[in-house]
Amino acid sequence: MTLIPWETTRSCMDRLFAPKSIALIGATNKLNKWGGMILANVLTNRFDGRVFPVNPTSSEVLGLRAYSKVTDIPDPVDLACIVTPAPTVSGLMEDCCRKGIRTVLVITSDFSESGPEGRRREEEIKKIAGERGIHLVGPNSMGIYSAPSSLVCIMSMMEPLKGEISFVSQSGNIGVQMLAWGKRLKTGFRHFVSSGNEADLTAQDYIRYFGEDPDCRTVMVYLESIKGRADFLEVAAEVARKKPVVVFKGGKTPAGLKAAASHSGALAGKRDMYDAGFRQAGLIQARTTEAFIDCARSLSRLPLPRGDRVGIITRGGGWGVITTDACEEMGLKVPDLEAHTIEALDRLLPPYWSHGNPIDLVAVPEISIYLNCLEILMRDPNVDGVIALGAFLERATSFMRKPAFQQATGIDQPTVQEWEERERGAKESVLYGMLSLMKDLNKPVVTVMGREPSPKFDALLRKEGLSLYPTPERAVRVMARLMEYAGYRRRWEGE
Amino acid sequence: MTLIPWETTRSCMDRLFAPKSIALIGATNKLNKWGGMILANVLTNRFDGRVFPVNPTSSEVLGLRAYSKVTDIPDPVDLACIVTPAPTVSGLMEDCCRKGIRTVLVITSDFSESGPEGRRREEEIKKIAGERGIHLVGPNSMGIYSAPSSLVCIMSMMEPLKGEISFVSQSGNIGVQMLAWGKRLKTGFRHFVSSGNEADLTAQDYIRYFGEDPDCRTVMVYLESIKGRADFLEVAAEVARKKPVVVFKGGKTPAGLKAAASHSGALAGKRDMYDAGFRQAGLIQARTTEAFIDCARSLSRLPLPRGDRVGIITRGGGWGVITTDACEEMGLKVPDLEAHTIEALDRLLPPYWSHGNPIDLVAVPEISIYLNCLEILMRDPNVDGVIALGAFLERATSFMRKPAFQQATGIDQPTVQEWEERERGAKESVLYGMLSLMKDLNKPVVTVMGREPSPKFDALLRKEGLSLYPTPERAVRVMARLMEYAGYRRRWEGE
Repeated sequence: MTLIPWETTRSCMDRLFAPKSIALIGATNKLNKWGGMILANVLTNRFDGRVFPVNPTSSEVLGLRAYSKVTDIPDPVDLACIVTPAPTVSGLMEDCCRKGIRTVLVITSDFSESGPEGRRREEEIKKIAGERGIHLVGPNSMGIYSAPSSLVCIMSMMEPLKGEISFVSQSGNIGVQMLAWGKRLKTGFRHFVSSGNEADLTAQDYIRYFGEDPDCRTVMVYLESIKGRADFLEVAAEVARKKPVVVFKGGKTPAGLKAAASHSGALAGKRDMYDAGFRQAGLIQARTTEAFIDCARSLSRLPLPRGDRVGIITRGGGWGVITTDACEEMGLKVPDLEAHTIEALDRLLPPYWSHGNPIDLVAVPEISIYLNCLEILMRDPNVDGVIALGAFLERATSFMRKPAFQQATGIDQPTVQEWEERERGAKESVLYGMLSLMKDLNKPVVTVMGREPSPKFDALLRKEGLSLYPTPERAVRVMARLMEYAGYRRRWEGE
Repeated sequence: MTLIPWETTRSCMDRLFAPKSIALIGATNKLNKWGGMILANVLTNRFDGRVFPVNPTSSEVLGLRAYSKVTDIPDPVDLACIVTPAPTVSGLMEDCCRKGIRTVLVITSDFSESGPEGRRREEEIKKIAGERGIHLVGPNSMGIYSAPSSLVCIMSMMEPLKGEISFVSQSGNIGVQMLAWGKRLKTGFRHFVSSGNEADLTAQDYIRYFGEDPDCRTVMVYLESIKGRADFLEVAAEVARKKPVVVFKGGKTPAGLKAAASHSGALAGKRDMYDAGFRQAGLIQARTTEAFIDCARSLSRLPLPRGDRVGIITRGGGWGVITTDACEEMGLKVPDLEAHTIEALDRLLPPYWSHGNPIDLVAVPEISIYLNCLEILMRDPNVDGVIALGAFLERATSFMRKPAFQQATGIDQPTVQEWEERERGAKESVLYGMLSLMKDLNKPVVTVMGREPSPKFDALLRKEGLSLYPTPERAVRVMARLMEYAGYRRRWEGE
């Protein structure tokens, strides 16, 4: 395995993530079989290449000409995907080799994760791969996704959102769920691979590949155990110097390790070792699944802060308190503001404002004042980044649309609509103001919005790549990880 | 203050939460004023009682007959709500006293939270309340809500969801936001009070009242500092013996304390003191705003577990690992299962299932098997409660409705609809099976569902009072708090 030069591995992975043609070995018309479900998935997502179903008994599968063996396919094949029973896989790999296929994705399970017989089978296909110069994804993979090729070769029928995160997961289910969460959170993925048992290609190979991809902005890694070569941390550290690598470790506790061993047959290492190793390598470790996707979606989008001092702006005192607590608990500072900052705010705010950090705007409803105060806060030299609460205040227009409200107040529907329009304009100006302040001052703003934004405003946020968080704690956690990553980058750049 | 017997205070609070009539002093037609906004709120939410606007210059406000003074109102008034400027409040309280009103809600701010002059004013109204036997909510309150009276006397226009949680908050904004989150999470409230500066009625008074209310199932408390009598922990402990009391402490860190002092003028105590006190009193302390509402909405609904041992059932190995880690990290045990449990599962599952806790159903799609396995797990004597992942699996029917899918597979719309119907039936049978297992075996099940449930299924879940959590960590946290509370109850019952 170590004999294969990286250039060869890289070109095999090009064929994995951007194949011009794929052979689906085990394709079938039966949609309750994986071979049927995956093919339906590939076709429904309109893969940008040719698909050759391979089935020994059907000449047509889901409307496509089928072949009894890969060697019968007259055209070149970049990638083979195998979904047939485990005992057939080694023979099919020999076929792939004969056909000149160098990249094989093995979905089939019942290998090393299932016991001694499976381990023997895995050794066998590993040996074939090594001898024939084939690169192997899996076995026991849930599949791969590639946004640029519109390829969704995954056991779960879905249409992921296209984006800039590339993701390797040692658990297929977690991978697929993250793609689904991403869709809900308007966060898109570029590449995804369920790396399965990693008989050949390992997490570090994919990470290295994602690191070299200029269109990948963030790397996500779900890791239960490090396999293959011992260079995982080295490879990941190299990538982390260029872009954020967010890692979630499964099997952090003794009971979790035991569960991991039973499901992937892996022997995972000690927690302290991983924690220290990740830190050393400059990886961002997410502690919850929610933090995993939150960090991935925000880290690549925001400017890197120059320190760990947080300014807080809010419309409610209690929220300022909670946000301050969360900052302290996550190791961030909530600094005092410069006298000239306080003076500038005094000129804008009523006399009973909080006169410090957090800036509590109290009951000042004007949206334009919010943006002015935000700018003053961001310009304070003691502030490296801002948590902004209540920036996109939405008036209760759904409440105002109630007949009982309009009857009681005499306010009519056109008036409510007019208010809505005006407010939308004001919110948009805060959004664009905030984006340009981030750009000009090179300081990140992480935004909290307790309510669901309206669909129109949500679409705009997505277009502009701004994430909102529903709770201050989630926003502060993202800020903490961003400040941690910025610290790594400063350390390296100072070297 | 200490001279007033609890019976008097209780009857004042009956008039606060179930008034037959209210006088809104400072009511106005201007909706950009609090007096207009609150009246519009009360009317739109169709308060189940009479409303008397008080305004010195208008004879009609929002279509209602208005009075220049409360003493001009010919009918009895249970509750007065004051929104006029701070210097006018003491005089208006004297008026209320003359009218025989014993419960006054002061929305007006600019009291002790704003400086020496405000502190003087607060002392003055406190003195009047004490001398005249008036009970006072606030000042600087954002208002109150009562589901049974359909009374939304709150500064923020909203229609909260009716339910069984009663909530006192020392931050109005946090209170209002929780009501809004509750609505989004299908979690209803029975009573809410923004206790403001607590010049007279304090958090512990409301908690005691909620404790005596048979229709309140859970008490929520947002606390920055304990005011008034030093019996907070005593009162709360008494209530916690009957129903869960979930507390969120704002101002946990030095910086947070400083922020709290600037916004509410309060001097909050040391963190360790609170932590120990809460534990001693049997209160459930939520560490994040998300946990605050999660715990409140689940704790009263689930049977109390007899210990801290968690059974886990999942459809994906990785999720089992993460859930196990989360249990261990939150101090819960993931026990081994009895031999007869394993044998019973062996009869239902393919040979390669995980053979332990977590039970990984691997790729077994049948929903009925899920329920059978859940029952076997729940009947294991080593298991006190279950975290159930993937119970309400939803097939990707929105995917199947795509023309590209139907074109590729030849599956038509009626077939997809038929599948949907069948699956809905299966999901409902899991739901009802789960609910009856909880009842029969008296063990809680906390359910994780990564996808948003369909609106129809969501409505059913809400009707049956079952909360779903989007991540395993959130579900485990709820289970941990439930097990903590059950431990308190066992301790007391063993006394």
